[in-house]
Amino acid sequence: MKDDAIQVGLLGLGTVGSGVAQALQTKAASIARRVGRPVVLRRALVRDLARERVVPRTLLTGDPAEILEDPTIDIVVELLGGEEPAYQYMLAALDHGKLVVTANKEVMAKHGPEVLARAAARGLDVAFEASVGGGIPVIGPFRLDLLANDIQEVTAIINGTTNYILTQMARGGVGYSEALRDAQALGYAEPDPRNDVEGIDAAYKLTILATLAFHARVRPEDVYVEGITRLAAADFRYAHELGYAIKLLAIARQTTRGIELRVHPAFLASTDMLASVDGVYNAVSVEGDLVGRILFYGRGAGAGPTASAVVADVIDLAQRLQAGGGRAPVLPALDTARRLLPISEVWTRYYLRLVVVDRPGVIAQITKVLGDHEISLASVIQKETVEVAGAGEVAHAEIVLMTHRARESAVQQAVREIAALPVVAQVGSVIRVES
Amino acid sequence: MKDDAIQVGLLGLGTVGSGVAQALQTKAASIARRVGRPVVLRRALVRDLARERVVPRTLLTGDPAEILEDPTIDIVVELLGGEEPAYQYMLAALDHGKLVVTANKEVMAKHGPEVLARAAARGLDVAFEASVGGGIPVIGPFRLDLLANDIQEVTAIINGTTNYILTQMARGGVGYSEALRDAQALGYAEPDPRNDVEGIDAAYKLTILATLAFHARVRPEDVYVEGITRLAAADFRYAHELGYAIKLLAIARQTTRGIELRVHPAFLASTDMLASVDGVYNAVSVEGDLVGRILFYGRGAGAGPTASAVVADVIDLAQRLQAGGGRAPVLPALDTARRLLPISEVWTRYYLRLVVVDRPGVIAQITKVLGDHEISLASVIQKETVEVAGAGEVAHAEIVLMTHRARESAVQQAVREIAALPVVAQVGSVIRVES
Repeated sequence: MKDDAIQVGLLGLGTVGSGVAQALQTKAASIARRVGRPVVLRRALVRDLARERVVPRTLLTGDPAEILEDPTIDIVVELLGGEEPAYQYMLAALDHGKLVVTANKEVMAKHGPEVLARAAARGLDVAFEASVGGGIPVIGPFRLDLLANDIQEVTAIINGTTNYILTQMARGGVGYSEALRDAQALGYAEPDPRNDVEGIDAAYKLTILATLAFHARVRPEDVYVEGITRLAAADFRYAHELGYAIKLLAIARQTTRGIELRVHPAFLASTDMLASVDGVYNAVSVEGDLVGRILFYGRGAGAGPTASAVVADVIDLAQRLQAGGGRAPVLPALDTARRLLPISEVWTRYYLRLVVVDRPGVIAQITKVLGDHEISLASVIQKETVEVAGAGEVAHAEIVLMTHRARESAVQQAVREIAALPVVAQVGSVIRVES
Repeated sequence: MKDDAIQVGLLGLGTVGSGVAQALQTKAASIARRVGRPVVLRRALVRDLARERVVPRTLLTGDPAEILEDPTIDIVVELLGGEEPAYQYMLAALDHGKLVVTANKEVMAKHGPEVLARAAARGLDVAFEASVGGGIPVIGPFRLDLLANDIQEVTAIINGTTNYILTQMARGGVGYSEALRDAQALGYAEPDPRNDVEGIDAAYKLTILATLAFHARVRPEDVYVEGITRLAAADFRYAHELGYAIKLLAIARQTTRGIELRVHPAFLASTDMLASVDGVYNAVSVEGDLVGRILFYGRGAGAGPTASAVVADVIDLAQRLQAGGGRAPVLPALDTARRLLPISEVWTRYYLRLVVVDRPGVIAQITKVLGDHEISLASVIQKETVEVAGAGEVAHAEIVLMTHRARESAVQQAVREIAALPVVAQVGSVIRVES
C-alpha cells in the first residue's frame, strides 16, 4: 500500500459535511483497505471559523482558494447546496485538475451536462450519487447497471419532507398546516419550506434522473410542477376509502408523442409498492425494456444516508486515482431535439372532489359537461352532506368522481365549466390518478 | 470511435443466452455509443449445432476451446449454469487473458473468492451482477455504492419460483402441491424443482451477498437451509388473520456473537415492504450503519432481466478495455476467522401451530413446557375444531401460539416435548417470525 494519502477538501461542514468528515475519520482503516491507500481530510471550508466542529480547528479555512487551488488536494467534495457559489467552485476545482464529488441537486439539474463535459474534457469526473435519493443507489444504477435498457419511465417519491407531511395527513387525519408545523418541529421541514412543499426540490431531482434515463437535455423549467399545499384532509379520507394513497410523485415518461416530465400529488393504488413508501423514505421506480420494473427504496436525506453516498463516491474516485487515473467517463451526446410533452397533452385518470347543492339532477349536469369533453366516468363514489359557510338553508353534498383516461387540457376545460355551474359551490380538488 | 470491435464469446445459448445475444444485436448502436467502440458477438457455444437459434449458424460452435482460446475474443460470458464445466471454463478464460461475465450463482457461491483472486492476479475482472436478483442492481451497489457502510443485515426474497408458489398459496388458499403444479405449468418452476423449493438456490445467492456484505469467507454449507415444502394452507390462513405474510427469506445478519446465515420460511408483518413482494419478484433489503435500511426490488429471473444485468456487465468491462484496461479491482482480504452462528444459537420469535385434544387444561400443559424452557408467549390466538383421521369420537382443536424472542435450541427442545404430550395430536408447523 502506498503511504502518501489521497487528500480530500470539503466545501461545507453542515449536517451532511460533518457526517462525511466523521465517516472519513472513523472509517479511515476500512476505506484505506478498499482504496489501497489512505484517504484523509485535508481541509474544510466553513463560514464561521470560531464554532466548535467535528474536525480539528487546524483543518478549517474560510477561504475557498485554500481548497480549490491547493495542489495537494485530489478530491473536492462540494456540500454547500444552492446554485452559487457552489457551481463556480465546482468549475474552479475541475480547472485545477481535481475530481469532484457533490450532493448538489440544484447545480446538477441546472448545469449537470456542462459540469460533466468540463470534467470529461480534462480526463476528470464528477460523482453525484448523493444528489438524488440520499444513500439509495440511483445514479450509479443509471450510469452502469441499467445501461443495456431503453428506459420507458421513472416514477419516484424523492422528497422526504413532503412524503412525511403526506404520511401524517393520511394517518392522522390532520390538515396540511398542522402536518407542516409537526414536520418543522421535528426538523423534517425547513422554516421556509417552499422548495420542498412546492415541488421544486423534487423537480431538480427529476431533471437529473430524466437526463440519465433518456440521454436527453432536460432542464428544471421543463418540469410541470404542482406542490402539496392545496391537499385537504377530505382527499385523504376519500383516497383511503377508495383504496389509494396520495403521494407527491415525480414522473418522467417516454411516450410516442414526447417525454412527460411532471411533479404533482397523485393517487396511487394501495397495492402499488410506491404507496407503501411512508415518512421520510424515498423510492425510485424504473421501467426498462429488458429489466421490467425495478424499485429502489431508502432514506432520501439526513447526515448518515447522504454521507453514505458521498463517501462511496469518494472511494470510487480514490480507487480510480490509485489505478492511475482510470477511465474518463464515456459521455454519450445528449439528445437536444427530443420533444417534451406539455402537461396539457398528458393523458391520465383524474379524481375530482366537488361541493354541490344537494338536489336531484346535479350529477347529470356535471356528467354532461364531462361528456361534452369526451371524459368518461369510471365512478361517482361518495356523497356526504357538508357545511358550506354562508349557504344558509341550502343543503350541500360532497361528491367524488373518478374518470377514465382523459387528456389534461380537456379535464381542465371541463373543470372550469363545472366550476361555473350554479349548482356547484366549489371544486375541492383535481388530483391525477397514476396507478 | 475506434473501428475494431470488442468481441464477445458466449458460453450457452439457452433462454438467457438468447436474450443476451438478441440484446447485443438489437442494441448494437447504443452499446457502441456508450462504450466508444462496437461490441459484437463473435461466437456462441451450444450443445446442439443443428437447432434453430437467434444468432447466425456461422457463429455457433460445439467446442469450448474455440471461445476460451480464441485470441480475438475479449470478453467471455458464461451462461451454462451449474458448477462444472462452467467453473473450469471461467478459469480457462481468465488464463487466456479474457474478462469474464457470469450469471452463475453456484460457481460464485462455491468458488467466487478464488475466481476473483485469479482474475485480480492477472489484472482482469469477473463481473457477476446477474448471479443474484436478475436485473436488480445488487452486486454493483455492494461493490461500490454501499462501500462506506458497515453492513449489519441483508434480508432478501431471492428465489422467484418459491415466491410465486407462496403468493399463490396466500391468495388462492391452495396447498403446496397444487401451487407447485401451477408454477410448473407456467414455466416458473422446473420439472425437478428441488433446488428452488428446498432453498438451495437461495442459499447460493445468500452466500454471494454475505461475502460481499461482511467481507467474510462464507460457503454455501455455512447456510442453514429449510425449504417451503412443509407449509400448509392453514399457515397462510392464520398468517393472514394475524397480519402477516409468509415468505422464503434469506437472512445474513451480523451479531455480536457471530454471523447468522439462514434460508427458511418466515412470518413477515404485512406492513413490512418485503411482505408486499409477490409473484416472481425479488427484493433485497440491506441495513448499513450510515445508509439505514435500503431495499432493491424487481424481477429476479427471466431472459430480459438477466440479459439486462449481463449486458450491463459487458458494457462495463468493454468501457474499461476501451479506457486501456482500467483498474484491476481492489480486493480487500476476506476475513476467514469470523464466527458463523449455528442456527441453534439464533434468537427470534416463533409461530407454532398444534393440533390438540379439545379439552380443558391442554393449553396450560403446553405453556408449562414453554415456560420450562424460558420461552414466553406473546399470544395464543386461534382455535378451530379440526378433523383428525382415526381419532374416532375425540374432538380436536387447532391452536396457534406466537412466542416472544427465544433461542432456537430451546424452542426445538420444547417442541419435541410438546409433541410427546398425550394431548397433542400433531405439531403442524414451527415458523420463525422475522418482523
